[in-house]
Amino acid sequence: MWTNSRLTEKLQLSYPIIQAGMAGGVTTPALVAAVSNAGGLGQIGAGYLSAAQLQEQIEGVRRLTTKAFGVNLFVPEYVDTTDEEIAQANEWLAPIRVAVGGGEEAVWEPEDEALFDAQIDLIVKEQLAVCSFTFGLPSKEVIERLHAAGVMVIGTATTVAEARANEAAGVDAVVAQGSEAGGHRGTFLHEKALIGTMALIPQIADAVQLPVIAAGGITDARTILAADMLGADAVQMGTAFVPVVESGAHEVHKQAIVQAKAEETIVTTTFSGKAARGIHNDFIAEMVPYEGKVPSYPIQNTLTKPIRAAAAQQENAAYMSLWCGQNPSDHSDVYAAQLIERLVEEVEERIAQFARHTQ
Amino acid sequence: MWTNSRLTEKLQLSYPIIQAGMAGGVTTPALVAAVSNAGGLGQIGAGYLSAAQLQEQIEGVRRLTTKAFGVNLFVPEYVDTTDEEIAQANEWLAPIRVAVGGGEEAVWEPEDEALFDAQIDLIVKEQLAVCSFTFGLPSKEVIERLHAAGVMVIGTATTVAEARANEAAGVDAVVAQGSEAGGHRGTFLHEKALIGTMALIPQIADAVQLPVIAAGGITDARTILAADMLGADAVQMGTAFVPVVESGAHEVHKQAIVQAKAEETIVTTTFSGKAARGIHNDFIAEMVPYEGKVPSYPIQNTLTKPIRAAAAQQENAAYMSLWCGQNPSDHSDVYAAQLIERLVEEVEERIAQFARHTQ
Repeated sequence: MWTNSRLTEKLQLSYPIIQAGMAGGVTTPALVAAVSNAGGLGQIGAGYLSAAQLQEQIEGVRRLTTKAFGVNLFVPEYVDTTDEEIAQANEWLAPIRVAVGGGEEAVWEPEDEALFDAQIDLIVKEQLAVCSFTFGLPSKEVIERLHAAGVMVIGTATTVAEARANEAAGVDAVVAQGSEAGGHRGTFLHEKALIGTMALIPQIADAVQLPVIAAGGITDARTILAADMLGADAVQMGTAFVPVVESGAHEVHKQAIVQAKAEETIVTTTFSGKAARGIHNDFIAEMVPYEGKVPSYPIQNTLTKPIRAAAAQQENAAYMSLWCGQNPSDHSDVYAAQLIERLVEEVEERIAQFARHTQ
Repeated sequence: MWTNSRLTEKLQLSYPIIQAGMAGGVTTPALVAAVSNAGGLGQIGAGYLSAAQLQEQIEGVRRLTTKAFGVNLFVPEYVDTTDEEIAQANEWLAPIRVAVGGGEEAVWEPEDEALFDAQIDLIVKEQLAVCSFTFGLPSKEVIERLHAAGVMVIGTATTVAEARANEAAGVDAVVAQGSEAGGHRGTFLHEKALIGTMALIPQIADAVQLPVIAAGGITDARTILAADMLGADAVQMGTAFVPVVESGAHEVHKQAIVQAKAEETIVTTTFSGKAARGIHNDFIAEMVPYEGKVPSYPIQNTLTKPIRAAAAQQENAAYMSLWCGQNPSDHSDVYAAQLIERLVEEVEERIAQFARHTQ
């Protein structure tokens, strides 16, 4: 794949390196533009953004680059709940609210069903290069609207069945998200699917005709080249970009990743109601009894929001969601462009080495 | 690494392909010898074998090959239990004993502490090429005895800390077992460690000077080359060898692997008391409430033995332990030598392709 894959060609990328569209403020216009300017594909993590906020981000990126970039959206889930369920969930969180010394009980309000449509309208209007999705499949109608506007559509799969479902829905490429990946799992057809990247990529590459983007544990030249060998058309990196200078992640989060050990990361549903990998801390430990019982996404996510906000404000790592993959990066104090430059140099050195070695 | 690594040199292997020493009768002298004769390293899975049984196996292999081969041993754990714990565990298993229509309650007898010493004595006497270990670290004394007899010692690690502990103990190489791997986890320093191969191999390669053997999800040319890129000196394949003709695995187990999907495999402690990955079936489903509560290894392993034996006799996949990794192999009806020949051909084709592609 290196510098010469279906995806690099289609998106006119110098390198098959995609920056994951991490939500919650991790991606900034400066980060997205820097990745695209360096020859990769930057993406705005727009999962939690209103159309107005997303527009502002898009304008921000466009002030900094003329290159292609993308937007990552959550496929919405409209869920029902009861006052009892909310009260119970809030009760489970009560000791943690006390521990962070503040953080009011959140009020659950069902998600605005117009939000997703407004996000899509904007992406169509702005004719962005890429719109990627996680947490499920967009409807065929949404995909057709995006295609009509020239937007490339990328889906997310954590199993072969999910990759096939993406292909049948009509997406243009699929992220194969291995179990090593940090942050939220894109799983939507299975209760739980934690298939390692080494196993997932070749199986998905065999099952679909689509270009496959390898995600999960990709952090350096070795893992990029391994993904290449496994049949990927590109790699997507999340954790590796969190500590860079332009990232909007909290300083505490950046430091936690730089110091993390792989075995300290764990998959939990207790922050948001949806499985996500982060660094083990007091929040996760105290919520263990409620694993599998908390309300589903996005309810639990709303209920824990004031806690996470209070913890972040106090720089209290014990109660923040410190999303992190199993290959934590130590790329701190570097700019995104420097990180990409280092990766490219090392990949090219290793290719030359491999060529000499196998002659 | 391909055909030219510290391990291929030391063991005079044509290819850096090691067959995992799968216990419970999966490895046969015919399988071990076939792998070694084909240029890889075959290994006897001797975890459950007495010294007399092991001797018979070694003699069997030596009748079929003059090449190097290995023996895999379990580092023993001597555990205490109570009559109450045994009674409780047997009660949990009672409905399953009924379901398999037979299978008496097993009687727990503490493991013979002389067994491990007798295994080591034999390996020293026979001056085998390799003795590999899982479930922990052999003592320095054991390692020294093996070294004095010219036996290469290989340990198993599922985290960086475990790899470092192996290096400090004085082993000659370490298997880095990713979360994709089928069968028992080698984890010994952590309660649980399920780090994907893509993340684990480069981290262990950075942390130790030892040759690293990649395990977990390695099943074809792509995954072998990916492991090479990640910094491995060799690969170890387990699941891929289970369905081959010479494997002693039950026909039901072989067929289950050939038909398995990655997301159907799951890590459970309920068969043996130790975490192991196998294909989800009724046994695993019915034991979910007791996950984390069953007696530790080897107690639970002894208690479930009659059930597994009865199920195997009845060809009842629902109650057998169908160990399988996340990259199930479809190499059925092939001999081990054919499998290795195919792998080698495909690896060499891909290397040539890669060289052309990146010129």
